[in-house]
Amino acid sequence: MEKIKVFCPATIANISCGFDVLGLALEAVGDEMVVKKTQTPGIRITKITGQDLPLETEKNVAGVAGLALLEKSNSAFGFELEIHKKIKPGSGIGSSAASSAGVVWAMNELLGQPFSKLELVEFARQGEKIASNVAHADNVAPALFGGFTLIRSYSPLDIVSLPVPPELYATVIHPQIEVKTSDSRKILRADITLEKGIKQWGNLGGLIAGLFKEDYDLIGRSLEDHIVEPVRSLLIPMFDTIKTEAKAAGALGVGISGSGPSIFALSRGKETAENVSNAMEKVYLNTTLDFEVHVSGISSTGMKSI
Amino acid sequence: MEKIKVFCPATIANISCGFDVLGLALEAVGDEMVVKKTQTPGIRITKITGQDLPLETEKNVAGVAGLALLEKSNSAFGFELEIHKKIKPGSGIGSSAASSAGVVWAMNELLGQPFSKLELVEFARQGEKIASNVAHADNVAPALFGGFTLIRSYSPLDIVSLPVPPELYATVIHPQIEVKTSDSRKILRADITLEKGIKQWGNLGGLIAGLFKEDYDLIGRSLEDHIVEPVRSLLIPMFDTIKTEAKAAGALGVGISGSGPSIFALSRGKETAENVSNAMEKVYLNTTLDFEVHVSGISSTGMKSI
Repeated sequence: MEKIKVFCPATIANISCGFDVLGLALEAVGDEMVVKKTQTPGIRITKITGQDLPLETEKNVAGVAGLALLEKSNSAFGFELEIHKKIKPGSGIGSSAASSAGVVWAMNELLGQPFSKLELVEFARQGEKIASNVAHADNVAPALFGGFTLIRSYSPLDIVSLPVPPELYATVIHPQIEVKTSDSRKILRADITLEKGIKQWGNLGGLIAGLFKEDYDLIGRSLEDHIVEPVRSLLIPMFDTIKTEAKAAGALGVGISGSGPSIFALSRGKETAENVSNAMEKVYLNTTLDFEVHVSGISSTGMKSI
Repeated sequence: MEKIKVFCPATIANISCGFDVLGLALEAVGDEMVVKKTQTPGIRITKITGQDLPLETEKNVAGVAGLALLEKSNSAFGFELEIHKKIKPGSGIGSSAASSAGVVWAMNELLGQPFSKLELVEFARQGEKIASNVAHADNVAPALFGGFTLIRSYSPLDIVSLPVPPELYATVIHPQIEVKTSDSRKILRADITLEKGIKQWGNLGGLIAGLFKEDYDLIGRSLEDHIVEPVRSLLIPMFDTIKTEAKAAGALGVGISGSGPSIFALSRGKETAENVSNAMEKVYLNTTLDFEVHVSGISSTGMKSI
């Protein structure tokens, strides 16, 4: 194989109770990338559509992730990338992760899969690092593994795939304001109370048990965040109203997608997810904000060739 | 039914990464209790063997738990209790929980099961409250539900039953020193770092996923506690040595049982659990400490009539 076209899913990180450890991949929202193996060593980005992003390899998250893989491989090949961005950078649904995970997945396919998915996550994190100063993995892990993923530990990196209940759908609304991941990390306190910690790990345990049991009510009850949401939601216009309306429309739970500003909801069934979408949309239609809304199943595969 | 004899399992709370939310019930260690329905209202404790504990209903954890149930029931009956303690009070394997959960379970059976297990947990917590000043539920929940239990939330009380991997065995060693639950709570800090919190909920998620997947290695990797163990283990003689030796003997993980001083290990297979028992024992045999060791499967039923 000399060339591959890849669907690179958007991802929701944190998922309310899983700050820095949980993520999921979306089925219906993602970038496309064309990666070509060449005889010229190195990585060249030949084309980017959809967004104004740097073509220089070292300044582009996909370029940096690709170089990280190349450095560890014994390959004499080089690679050319075409990136077709559909996920808006800064939206909070893993735009940089889609690019950095997409390129390493594609390169690994073209090289005959010399690397494990866990190794691919390590390469992709290098791209994440230039995007947000933190090599977090809660978007690249679900982008590469698909479904829900838990990062049990960062050092050593330990990723656990979790099951996807079949009727689960996500709704994401993206108010088009800028919140930089690096800024939204800065406003978090370095300490939390033990009391809130106990609530958080109780909910995280409940969410994971709910995924295994396909217990949608338990999933809903567990989608609570007493630690990050109270602080970060202040940066997101109308967060509380959107949450209230989405729940009234039947959402199991509502929270901040990654570091925001997108807001996600999980629902049982596509119809409910669409009702939730309408309810969320209605809130922003009464403002001057630009926004985008997505309704999507959960991608159980993550990256795929198309 | 006028009379019931009950096996009341010992329990391990916290289980390293699940402070205040996780617990499990033991199959081979527990009290026995005989509960008799009488025409005389109220609760009388007629006999206690094995330990010197108060016979006055209001001063005994079983008495208090039983009164809590009686208060909510419309029953005109009274109850007589015989308690045969096999679990040492203050051992850290749920001695008070076995008594308070045992009596409410037995009374509920004799009354024709008017209450749910969740309601029984609420009654039993009243007994826990007089034992340790905190109405915690991480021992009474597994004693009543069996297996592993997660307390997702205390308010409202939300208990999730988790599966028991068939080859999992526990080893518990009890150094006979006194550590009061109320004291061992006092030494905990009210705040934790967000960084440690993230590690904790990552591990809790890993442990729960490991139970569902029957992935013993994942269970082992997840049995880490960066928050409570570093503080409380200082109160337990030779904790670090016991942990090192137990792991060298094949334990998946080792931690403090409840608020201590007992130390538990989880192992794959009974033979390994027995090797772990020998390794733990050897450490204390070199000291002047009195101790007890137990090897036990995990009880999937919890309370049972015998």
